[in-house]
Amino acid sequence: MAQDQVTPFRWHGDELEVLDQRLLPAEEVWHSYSDAEGVYRAIHEMQVRGAPAIGIAAAYGVVLAARGCAQSPDWYSRLGATLDWLAQARPTAVNLVWALERMRGCLDQVADSVGLVSVLEAEALRIHEEDAEANRAMGVLGADRILSGRPGSVRVLTHCNTGALATGGQGTALGVVRELFRRGSLAGLHMDETRPWLQGARLTAWECEREGMPCSLNVDGAAATLMAQGKVDWVVVGADRITANGDVANKIGTLPLAVLARHYGVGMMVVAPSSTLDAGTPSGDRIRIEERDGTELRRSGRRWLAPASVAVFNPVFDVTPATLVDVIVTENGICEAPGQHVAPLDSLV
Amino acid sequence: MAQDQVTPFRWHGDELEVLDQRLLPAEEVWHSYSDAEGVYRAIHEMQVRGAPAIGIAAAYGVVLAARGCAQSPDWYSRLGATLDWLAQARPTAVNLVWALERMRGCLDQVADSVGLVSVLEAEALRIHEEDAEANRAMGVLGADRILSGRPGSVRVLTHCNTGALATGGQGTALGVVRELFRRGSLAGLHMDETRPWLQGARLTAWECEREGMPCSLNVDGAAATLMAQGKVDWVVVGADRITANGDVANKIGTLPLAVLARHYGVGMMVVAPSSTLDAGTPSGDRIRIEERDGTELRRSGRRWLAPASVAVFNPVFDVTPATLVDVIVTENGICEAPGQHVAPLDSLV
Repeated sequence: MAQDQVTPFRWHGDELEVLDQRLLPAEEVWHSYSDAEGVYRAIHEMQVRGAPAIGIAAAYGVVLAARGCAQSPDWYSRLGATLDWLAQARPTAVNLVWALERMRGCLDQVADSVGLVSVLEAEALRIHEEDAEANRAMGVLGADRILSGRPGSVRVLTHCNTGALATGGQGTALGVVRELFRRGSLAGLHMDETRPWLQGARLTAWECEREGMPCSLNVDGAAATLMAQGKVDWVVVGADRITANGDVANKIGTLPLAVLARHYGVGMMVVAPSSTLDAGTPSGDRIRIEERDGTELRRSGRRWLAPASVAVFNPVFDVTPATLVDVIVTENGICEAPGQHVAPLDSLV
Repeated sequence: MAQDQVTPFRWHGDELEVLDQRLLPAEEVWHSYSDAEGVYRAIHEMQVRGAPAIGIAAAYGVVLAARGCAQSPDWYSRLGATLDWLAQARPTAVNLVWALERMRGCLDQVADSVGLVSVLEAEALRIHEEDAEANRAMGVLGADRILSGRPGSVRVLTHCNTGALATGGQGTALGVVRELFRRGSLAGLHMDETRPWLQGARLTAWECEREGMPCSLNVDGAAATLMAQGKVDWVVVGADRITANGDVANKIGTLPLAVLARHYGVGMMVVAPSSTLDAGTPSGDRIRIEERDGTELRRSGRRWLAPASVAVFNPVFDVTPATLVDVIVTENGICEAPGQHVAPLDSLV
């Protein structure tokens, strides 16, 4: 795995180093954890975030737990309890549970504690490498698609952080942008700051500037002006969930980009791993949108940004209807105009 | 003039007290200025903002300048230079120039310096009172128009601050909202926080909560979700400049609301005094859009929100084409569907 790019953690066999993303972009602080308790804390306190990155970190946490108890006669039950406990480090993180279930499967492959650690470590590395490989595949598929329609170089607008900091590789939507950059085909990247958590300003801008991309930050409300001025060819975003009809739940502020892209004739591409596909939910209106506390809008650190008692509508996600999406990309393939398909997920699974 | 409501400044004859809006909602700090230099600074540093309020403040600044130089033999040329200089305190604000031209007209009414100050002060007070009266007229016209289409109560979404803090009266767009509230016809007001300056969070929320309106704050990117959920009947915003063809320059983030409103079948109303009309500029593409320093996005107080050296696109305004506006309201009248008129300003002057 290339280590020359941004990464949310570094695995050393007996410890996991975690980049404290809460302190970015002001400080680059790494914490070292040699037990599962530390990894739990890193996930719970959001030092590491991004669904794929959380799952991988938890898998490494299981390896650290195994190192601590492999010599103990009750290693099996102790590790089982650790798996249950790690799964609660963040609520609603599907990838977290998914990665831990893969690690749990390994426990039953080893008859005794001999080789336990190496079996678990191999699985954690595999989860990590598979995610990086999926990122690479999405990057190639997405960049090919964008350049097929318009050879030369393109201007992209993205939202939130879907990059190396959120994944085990180069990122999802930002992986496509990186691939365009590697090919010399990225004329410019516009980055929405992404209120209220500012992942675009704090994380995406940090990643992209560091790698020397031609990039520029803007408030979310300025994306329309960039499109009206003809400065955007494609909007490229990630997804938290894609329902059976192709509707896309993603960070709040994605839906207006899709409406604007359609209005201005700009392409709208959604890039997400196949684990994001939710064939069991028929359409986006069935998704319950999580709402977070209004304090996130009312204050920044110790500064009041709004009256302390004002009512706040603070949804985490919005739902973009499939009809406003031009292309969905997973590591397995591409779906054009998902709103025109009866079963848009078929080519993506 | 009713003084029971929020006001951005208080005139005392020999000094202008200015509410430092940059410190709201945490602190209510008033600065006193007794010369034009102080007023220039208050405008330039955005202690006072909002096109009408800026014009009124500048007019009072001219009175203060006249007090300082009325006894000087070259008062005429000195005041002329002060007028030119004050006009540059903020680049895009047409009201600023308009108010200063009215003050300049007074210079030629006085044969010598005798009575200069009282003539100028009377004119500044007239500009102030006319603005308050215009606000009242716009409130009635706008509320009548909204309720004519839909008797009962309505849900409004607004952007930035167009209220008492931005004007010499109850506000422009927010004056319409106040009038709806007074009539018992305001079911709810959604307030965009309005990055990067957060005038919606800091100022509109402060004004509206104080007056007991049913109101709720949201990030700019959540307006689309509110419209998609059918929670908005009208978008009601102000304007910094309206060109001859009906294009509207207003706070960054207005254009996406207009595109969204059209997409979701929500009404788009622009409310601004006739002094905002700029018949001399044929269309919005002729407006030079002020861009401010990227630091406004990169940090909040002492906190870094983005890397210190990342490029930033930080336009103050955007331009909404007349075709995306349903109604323009001034104190003189209403223009329906300005994009369909050859001379949309005719009914508004």
